[in-house]
Amino acid sequence: MKPLLITQGDPAGVGPEICAACAVKEMINPTDAPIAVLGSAALLKKAAEYSVAPADMPIFDSIPVVPYQEFAAGAAADSPVQIVDFDNVDMTVHAPGRICAEYGQASFDYIKSAIDWTLSGLGAGVVTGPIHKVALHLAGVPFPGHTEMFAHYTGAKSICMVLSSSELTTALVTAHVGYSDVPKLITQKRVWETLEINRAAWRKILDREPRFTVCGLNPHAGENGLFGNREEELAIAPAVEQAKQAGYNIVGPIPPDTAFIPSRRMQTDVYICMYHDQGLIPMKAFGFDSGINITLGLPIVRTSVDHGTAMDIAFGSTPSVKPNSYSMVCAIRLARKLSGENS
Amino acid sequence: MKPLLITQGDPAGVGPEICAACAVKEMINPTDAPIAVLGSAALLKKAAEYSVAPADMPIFDSIPVVPYQEFAAGAAADSPVQIVDFDNVDMTVHAPGRICAEYGQASFDYIKSAIDWTLSGLGAGVVTGPIHKVALHLAGVPFPGHTEMFAHYTGAKSICMVLSSSELTTALVTAHVGYSDVPKLITQKRVWETLEINRAAWRKILDREPRFTVCGLNPHAGENGLFGNREEELAIAPAVEQAKQAGYNIVGPIPPDTAFIPSRRMQTDVYICMYHDQGLIPMKAFGFDSGINITLGLPIVRTSVDHGTAMDIAFGSTPSVKPNSYSMVCAIRLARKLSGENS
Repeated sequence: MKPLLITQGDPAGVGPEICAACAVKEMINPTDAPIAVLGSAALLKKAAEYSVAPADMPIFDSIPVVPYQEFAAGAAADSPVQIVDFDNVDMTVHAPGRICAEYGQASFDYIKSAIDWTLSGLGAGVVTGPIHKVALHLAGVPFPGHTEMFAHYTGAKSICMVLSSSELTTALVTAHVGYSDVPKLITQKRVWETLEINRAAWRKILDREPRFTVCGLNPHAGENGLFGNREEELAIAPAVEQAKQAGYNIVGPIPPDTAFIPSRRMQTDVYICMYHDQGLIPMKAFGFDSGINITLGLPIVRTSVDHGTAMDIAFGSTPSVKPNSYSMVCAIRLARKLSGENS
Repeated sequence: MKPLLITQGDPAGVGPEICAACAVKEMINPTDAPIAVLGSAALLKKAAEYSVAPADMPIFDSIPVVPYQEFAAGAAADSPVQIVDFDNVDMTVHAPGRICAEYGQASFDYIKSAIDWTLSGLGAGVVTGPIHKVALHLAGVPFPGHTEMFAHYTGAKSICMVLSSSELTTALVTAHVGYSDVPKLITQKRVWETLEINRAAWRKILDREPRFTVCGLNPHAGENGLFGNREEELAIAPAVEQAKQAGYNIVGPIPPDTAFIPSRRMQTDVYICMYHDQGLIPMKAFGFDSGINITLGLPIVRTSVDHGTAMDIAFGSTPSVKPNSYSMVCAIRLARKLSGENS
């Protein structure tokens, strides 16, 4: 069985601790879908000392370590968990919160290998740990974030950023663009593509027809043209109509401010949101712990934690606060569902 | 003591029932700040039969009824609650859900009188029940909603729409304008005016310096110009700086999606939001019951319920669902605090 590939993220953040904690959880409760953590074995060992209970350290120490060249050559370990060691973190100068080109390059190397190995059939999909944009930039990596790397290296044409938590799931028609740039990007074609990509994925995850709620763009969804430039009538409603014809379970466009009230949340599996903050404000308002990030529309599975490197609490920097690995646990769980038929 | 003036709202919606329920509550637990319900005495009697417990009907029946001409002439009743009777609802054809010019006109008459009487010193402030925009339109009333009426008839120059619930309070820099029209309205002057108006009001309500959190406009608050047209640097941050100089307790502009996470909510009394849905999505996501609407910047106090006419549940239309008067209770409570020094 091909393993899911987990990237440890920036060496100076909480990624390594979260990966070490998840690795031990998976060893204790193994599934039939193994994981491989791509990172630095020496750093993950240090991270485990912060994130794994002393009594569980022998379990961590029993995880096989495979040099990345061997893994690349097809010599994966037969274990529910393995560490694929890139040996690219100099432990003599390692420090939490250190933002540097070396760590940006290391973060990139895990991701690039995870993509290549999944495309070539060595991995079942990718689950990414948190990276630091400035470190990436210092290393000369020409991408602002994960999503752009995955789109580029897999050659994906139309991707969709989805955020999911125990409370709600939002799929974004537009994501990292300025506020003013959104309206011209809201076309029937783009809303429809977002729906198509999401229907395919959520049928697989839920094992039934997903229930979509589509938000308008303007206050009160434009109130019949009173506000805005009829984006609802010209782009969003036609895509919803197209989806209804195709048998989707869908309502919208509805006023954004009432879309997320409790009664509507209970009737919605996936919100289709027109812009970044329309989806992310309610997502994050309910709390961070279980949030994950999914990139749909790629030829490979990719999920991610929905939090940053949190360098201020990495490796005991704030003794009273421990990194929470629940987002990674959820990201791994969903990646398994999405990759189920491929692994 | 001048009474707070409560408008009953559209005769075909839940406003009359909510007003009748609040009237009885106020009679049972009178305060030193009386209320006067502006509406139809006959309709409020019918509404009470749906919203007041049979055992409390004698209390409702003991509420003095004053014809509106007498109230206008200064002959208010000396009672914690009184009904100011406009006698403008024909009970022989009254029906819940009936959207008509007659009811639009009646709704308008209560509001216009409440404004006039508060400006002339007969009332301490206005608390409005829910009205129906289509009924107003049918009556030829040239305003889309309450806020515009209050601004027009009081001659207010710069007003601010504020939504408040037990979970959070949001003040809007822009409100009922299309998505595309927002950026050009986000100026340092307008953000600053919103702050000034809110500081004055919330010092009075909270009896201390309010803690403001100011949202950015773009995803990630623009991420140093990466997204958007530097609205944060050009308009929002300068207004925040101006406020800091003036001794405000304020942070921002911060990324909108992380502004509403639980830890930040606990540190915020009032959010300054750049557009309607930035504030209303999180407000409403937490549920409706306690939400109220406040118009700041007027020469008079005005609060309102934050829900519509809910005609589908008015006057027993849906036997299993009763109108909830909690929003009106909260709106009256806040209006009392705001009008405290004037009454």
